[in-house]
Amino acid sequence: MTQTRKPSDPKHRTREPKTPSSSSSSSFSTSGMKLIVPLQGVVQGRGGLFLGTLIPCALFYFLQLYLKRRRSGFNNPPSPSSTSSPTLPRTSSRSNLSTRGSISRVRVSKLATLVAKPDDSLYYLGLEKVSQDPYDASENPNGIIQLGLSDNKLCLDLIGKWVSRNLEGSLMGSSDDVTLSINGIAPYQPHDGLGELKMALSDFMQQVMGESVKFDPSNMILTSGATPAIEILSFCLADHGNAFLVPTPYYPGFVRDVRWRPGVDLIPVHCRSTDNFNLNITALEQAYSQARKRGVKVRGILISNPSNPVGNILTPDVLFSLLDFAEEKNIHIIADEVFAGSTYGSDKFVSIAEILDSEYVDKSRVHIVYGLSKDLSLAGFRVGVIYSFNHTVLAAAKKLSRFSSISAPTQRLVASMLSDKRFIQEYLETNRYRIQQVHDKFVDCLSKLGIKCAKSSAGMFCWADMSGLIRPYSEKGELELWEKFMSVSKINITPGSACHCIEPGWFRICFTSISFEDIPLVIERIRRVVESCKSSS
Amino acid sequence: MTQTRKPSDPKHRTREPKTPSSSSSSSFSTSGMKLIVPLQGVVQGRGGLFLGTLIPCALFYFLQLYLKRRRSGFNNPPSPSSTSSPTLPRTSSRSNLSTRGSISRVRVSKLATLVAKPDDSLYYLGLEKVSQDPYDASENPNGIIQLGLSDNKLCLDLIGKWVSRNLEGSLMGSSDDVTLSINGIAPYQPHDGLGELKMALSDFMQQVMGESVKFDPSNMILTSGATPAIEILSFCLADHGNAFLVPTPYYPGFVRDVRWRPGVDLIPVHCRSTDNFNLNITALEQAYSQARKRGVKVRGILISNPSNPVGNILTPDVLFSLLDFAEEKNIHIIADEVFAGSTYGSDKFVSIAEILDSEYVDKSRVHIVYGLSKDLSLAGFRVGVIYSFNHTVLAAAKKLSRFSSISAPTQRLVASMLSDKRFIQEYLETNRYRIQQVHDKFVDCLSKLGIKCAKSSAGMFCWADMSGLIRPYSEKGELELWEKFMSVSKINITPGSACHCIEPGWFRICFTSISFEDIPLVIERIRRVVESCKSSS
Repeated sequence: MTQTRKPSDPKHRTREPKTPSSSSSSSFSTSGMKLIVPLQGVVQGRGGLFLGTLIPCALFYFLQLYLKRRRSGFNNPPSPSSTSSPTLPRTSSRSNLSTRGSISRVRVSKLATLVAKPDDSLYYLGLEKVSQDPYDASENPNGIIQLGLSDNKLCLDLIGKWVSRNLEGSLMGSSDDVTLSINGIAPYQPHDGLGELKMALSDFMQQVMGESVKFDPSNMILTSGATPAIEILSFCLADHGNAFLVPTPYYPGFVRDVRWRPGVDLIPVHCRSTDNFNLNITALEQAYSQARKRGVKVRGILISNPSNPVGNILTPDVLFSLLDFAEEKNIHIIADEVFAGSTYGSDKFVSIAEILDSEYVDKSRVHIVYGLSKDLSLAGFRVGVIYSFNHTVLAAAKKLSRFSSISAPTQRLVASMLSDKRFIQEYLETNRYRIQQVHDKFVDCLSKLGIKCAKSSAGMFCWADMSGLIRPYSEKGELELWEKFMSVSKINITPGSACHCIEPGWFRICFTSISFEDIPLVIERIRRVVESCKSSS
Repeated sequence: MTQTRKPSDPKHRTREPKTPSSSSSSSFSTSGMKLIVPLQGVVQGRGGLFLGTLIPCALFYFLQLYLKRRRSGFNNPPSPSSTSSPTLPRTSSRSNLSTRGSISRVRVSKLATLVAKPDDSLYYLGLEKVSQDPYDASENPNGIIQLGLSDNKLCLDLIGKWVSRNLEGSLMGSSDDVTLSINGIAPYQPHDGLGELKMALSDFMQQVMGESVKFDPSNMILTSGATPAIEILSFCLADHGNAFLVPTPYYPGFVRDVRWRPGVDLIPVHCRSTDNFNLNITALEQAYSQARKRGVKVRGILISNPSNPVGNILTPDVLFSLLDFAEEKNIHIIADEVFAGSTYGSDKFVSIAEILDSEYVDKSRVHIVYGLSKDLSLAGFRVGVIYSFNHTVLAAAKKLSRFSSISAPTQRLVASMLSDKRFIQEYLETNRYRIQQVHDKFVDCLSKLGIKCAKSSAGMFCWADMSGLIRPYSEKGELELWEKFMSVSKINITPGSACHCIEPGWFRICFTSISFEDIPLVIERIRRVVESCKSSS
């Protein structure tokens, strides 16, 4: 069945036969053209265009086949029967199939292609560089110091002591029947978390968030860290191609959690240094209307409170305004409160859950993310929480938690730790005290180097203004300063651009992954960069 | 801008004004119709249809506004200033916003709406029913016995003893410095698994899969169970709307893992009882071509080997044919080998990895799923493995494992257990022996009741032919028998329809979640159903 097409058909104009003499900008190789073009000439006339397309395709197919056979020949012994290993003889008559078919590499998904690429965010690049050459006081004193990850190591002594004392009892109970004990952790457990851990977490969250708000275990879904909690919520609240509003600067990981698999876009709501990077509702309104004008469906606001990377806390007044805004636009609020218990300074943290208790609002649009990586220093344990008032979201998240379940032994261990109220009280107080000590000392030392930090009241980092050290005053200048920190002083910090900050020159410096004693070393390394910047200016 | 449409336009026929006297099957309420219909009559003429649509909409909007204000009035005290709680006074001038905007419930995603619905698969319905009324010999002897979940409880005594002896040393090491010990598990660890666990798992997989194949730890990504391993692979290998071929009957969970979030369709390749449900390559070819004819992009074949629910093992010859088929079509193979070590009977298990070692093939299309839930009875520990030869897939899966990381304490504990070669050897042998004992006894008892099982060599279940007990011979008959098992004998088993089996009357019965001593009780309960079926026929 051949099809005739008029040569003047514009769709096929590019496939019109060319004479060998015509100058060609085609991507075909010259030798290929020498073979194909005369052949196309031969089949002019009725069906010429069809055959003129078919013949080169057929030639290309046979070329592939030839190359494949040749390649097989390099790798396999020549006899077809000996292509199988002696231990696994191949009896199937289909063995000759392997010489048929395409030799093209098997395709992977668009997502895999995208995700597999090296990260272009300096946040991940910095983490990668540290993993290749990590600082160690005795074994690698010239390695890179990690100040780019909010890992809290200030109270590991307390955690270590508790675990070593209580491990056996927590996991295996007090019964002598080990089979009975292991029966509570080895077989399948509820995917969304053990009831005992949900109960313990409710109490812990209440304690951390100031005792004036209660958490109901039945509104909880547990996940293997706060990261999958945010991802699951994104899957539940928005369809692929929808968007969330996010105040900037924001945690670099949000892009991974929200965009990669759920396919939800992040629309920045820019906050400014003149407001100490506090959220401005007018900016929120503007970002929302602009998105709507572009035809984007905004389905929620994603906030971190206390803020990562700035460390400031949303006031109850701003939280009220956020709720009003979300209600007016009929969208969701996701509040990432993982730093709720890591506060210091004068500002008191208020959970959005507390605001809900005190006001008539439609709670079904509010979803809280919590976890134990920050406030309890247990990042390696992977314990996260979705706390939601929306029954559909809870029902869906419960089933989706199957993909991000927490290991049962860890759940038992953590439930037991959280239930030790005396220990928890002591831990929380000590942790807050130590964070404040390191923060104050660190910020003071930076100040003496001429580096000011944004006012903060929580978190494991300071948000430092190094705009005076960058030249040009742009993202390029910021990147160059970051590279200088990495190469000259071997320090990994997170540049503002990785946090989508609109003003260049700001950096997040995490200070809880080092000890109090390491501060002088870190400051000395920073001083080197500051001086090199001053001397070159 | 108004649009005129001819009343005869068929697309708009349903919106033609009706006279009040015409009998209406519309879903509008009668009172609403009384108001709206005359108004539509009034605005006939140019633009009438447009206005006739607009006016009821506007009326509906004002009705909503009225209802909202009224509802707010019920819930809030009358004075606007007292809507705030005394502890969290609201100072914002925006407080009046809460009365504006839409009162419609906030929307969740299509996925959440779908997933939140009660499961229509009897597999999940059965699990749900058991969780509400679980059998317990002493506390709930009339509860439902769980034979619908392949949980292996036959060797929990061995696991329990090992854990109780080695827990402290495994997690905290032998050092006296508890801070140093906890530093290896409390802070962030590599998301794709600890190196020590990957090493231990490589050795374990080699031991389980017959010593003739080696596994390279650098081809491994660890996940919180085999379930997220399958999901991550689906995300990596296929785009939304693509499909995998799956031989039936298949594990009911595949739909959840492959379709829910990755959006990949499962195309059944029907296997028949006459072939003992073994995979037939001709059926595979047919399913593939039919899918292509429908315009579906097939991106892979998903197999479970040993098969769940049948328990049979793919021969090396079938594996070779599968590889040929995949190469010819240029598609992937995902081999779920989680039951590799739970074998008995005469057929030897051969991993697809071994086939790859013995033959020149493009390894980059082969991906193995493994885990410790079955072969090591550690379902609650959530340890899964992606073993792939594809560098792009490994790079992407490494980053995606951030959403399904295994808790570090569990990794330490399991790595230590797997490294105890003597224990593992003893465990594997005992486990195989006990599975065989229970299997043989169970199948023998069923046979005496007239129920035959498919020939099997692995797994924790038998695939029982109860087609003689169903009437009519259809899915309906099968469902009725399942309900009889649930209500008459309080036993949860998995019907073939939940496994997408094309022949009605087959059931998967898991026998490892009960003890050897419980077999008579279970058989007695089954006997009751068999007799009730016979007496009613």
